[in-house]
Amino acid sequence: MKIPAFDDICAAHDRIRNIVHRTPVMTSSAINDIFEAELYFKCENFQKAGAFKFRGATNAVLSLSKEEAKKGVATHSSGNHAAALALSAGMRGIRSYIVMPDNAPEIKKKAVAGYGAEIIFCKPTLEARETTLEKVVEKTGAVFIHPYNNFNIISGQGTAAKELLEEAPDLDIVMAPVGGGGLLSGTAILAKSINPGIKVFAGEPKGADDACRSFKSGKLIPSVDPKTIADGLLTSLGTLTFQIIRKKVDDIITVSEEEIIYAMRHIWERMKIIIEPSSAVPLAALHENKNIAKGKRVGMILSGGNVELDKLPF
Amino acid sequence: MKIPAFDDICAAHDRIRNIVHRTPVMTSSAINDIFEAELYFKCENFQKAGAFKFRGATNAVLSLSKEEAKKGVATHSSGNHAAALALSAGMRGIRSYIVMPDNAPEIKKKAVAGYGAEIIFCKPTLEARETTLEKVVEKTGAVFIHPYNNFNIISGQGTAAKELLEEAPDLDIVMAPVGGGGLLSGTAILAKSINPGIKVFAGEPKGADDACRSFKSGKLIPSVDPKTIADGLLTSLGTLTFQIIRKKVDDIITVSEEEIIYAMRHIWERMKIIIEPSSAVPLAALHENKNIAKGKRVGMILSGGNVELDKLPF
Repeated sequence: MKIPAFDDICAAHDRIRNIVHRTPVMTSSAINDIFEAELYFKCENFQKAGAFKFRGATNAVLSLSKEEAKKGVATHSSGNHAAALALSAGMRGIRSYIVMPDNAPEIKKKAVAGYGAEIIFCKPTLEARETTLEKVVEKTGAVFIHPYNNFNIISGQGTAAKELLEEAPDLDIVMAPVGGGGLLSGTAILAKSINPGIKVFAGEPKGADDACRSFKSGKLIPSVDPKTIADGLLTSLGTLTFQIIRKKVDDIITVSEEEIIYAMRHIWERMKIIIEPSSAVPLAALHENKNIAKGKRVGMILSGGNVELDKLPF
Repeated sequence: MKIPAFDDICAAHDRIRNIVHRTPVMTSSAINDIFEAELYFKCENFQKAGAFKFRGATNAVLSLSKEEAKKGVATHSSGNHAAALALSAGMRGIRSYIVMPDNAPEIKKKAVAGYGAEIIFCKPTLEARETTLEKVVEKTGAVFIHPYNNFNIISGQGTAAKELLEEAPDLDIVMAPVGGGGLLSGTAILAKSINPGIKVFAGEPKGADDACRSFKSGKLIPSVDPKTIADGLLTSLGTLTFQIIRKKVDDIITVSEEEIIYAMRHIWERMKIIIEPSSAVPLAALHENKNIAKGKRVGMILSGGNVELDKLPF
């Protein structure tokens, strides 16, 4: 598969900029004091549908030809990609088919249905998801939009880092969480294109550390039964994202569940913003490795803000 | 007591603008859809020390003569005013003495102490607070900065509405919560000066509805044993704030505890920002009176974001 280049991210940005929110870049002097660094948080928790995923989904949907668009889009996901794809398809006025496990949280089912998607339920296994999706695609002719292992998705996700670097230039470090690797790939391509000397670090939960193990070993090793509160990061790298991350990322730092919850709470309390656990993973990684940031300018992508307030870890 | 005028708020703004955060004005298309209106939220939950109180406190501290400043400032409060005054005094490099009830939450004691104030504990009664404060003032010569019934405090609080109207001009309605009335007074003076036709509405908890009763009866009727989750609104109007509110405010709408919690949760979920219960009171008031806002441009001051995450009402 072809790897997106800087120009592809710029083209994606031109395509989606009037549709996605240009989310704010926030700072916190309290957090800067703790890290003895300047941290710049790109607040994708304020993005439409509550996460950066809307960038990639919108780019993918707008990149379809008229002919393709007529038949709609399809994916399997119970998370932010499902909601983002449903919303962006609805905004272009085309159909979306979302395969979801039947045990997905009510709130997620409602959100996806609320955006106008047709939901197809299946058993909660990867095999059931994939075969159900195949049938849907076969029957409807819809275009499958993979949540991360997809050229247009990666290009779209890279636009968050583009805006971040426009507002906070001269960053020494950029950080993002890594699950399937779409956000991290787009971020790394963008950042290294603008400044080859910039460091790109990822944070990953220890309980779902396939990206770290793949990165260190040089072989794609998918997760088996991953477990983490950072529910956006349960997925494993794909072939395309792994290829990009190997080349462009400087390190992947793993963190414990306690560290994720601590960092999440810290951001809630100090910054007064709501982020989901996945968003807190890079700050947790930095907290365990303060020497990395000391005296530096660090950009950090807060990936999303979709949490169930009835099930907070504190 | 003299009532602040538009020019006093402008002077306050010039005095404090390089010290306070110019907080963002946020919008939410989901909330706009519900109310069939355009709502503009002035996010004082992102203000230093977590609430609008830092504006008034900073204006009061910076308005002291060198002679006065030498002896420091004093107040009695266990809430946002205490933290705000402690921080603004610290930033001018002067002393602050805060009288707090000995049963105040640990987190508040720590915050105030963390800002460098000297805390003087007393019994948790209004009488104990006032006599303790008198003694402190007598002993130290510090200037008592009343949390709301104070010319400079009101002028400072009015700067939030000034920034709001600069960014969202042509508002039809401005709303704020009312406790002691400092924020509401400053907001009303500012808004009516810029546009005499603008409507100024306040939200107030039913369990602490002294402002509404005073407003309707034309007589200052302090609360007796007020109870509400909106802990910033337990105080009663003062003589100065009552005088201003009678003249400048169009209506005070009271809301139940359930409505406050519902509105608070709504803002958390839809806007992904953390606000304290007091901040949700105006939206709760609007929710019960949707006809007021329909088709209008409404500015709303979110007063603060200091909540204890371990004690959420949901």
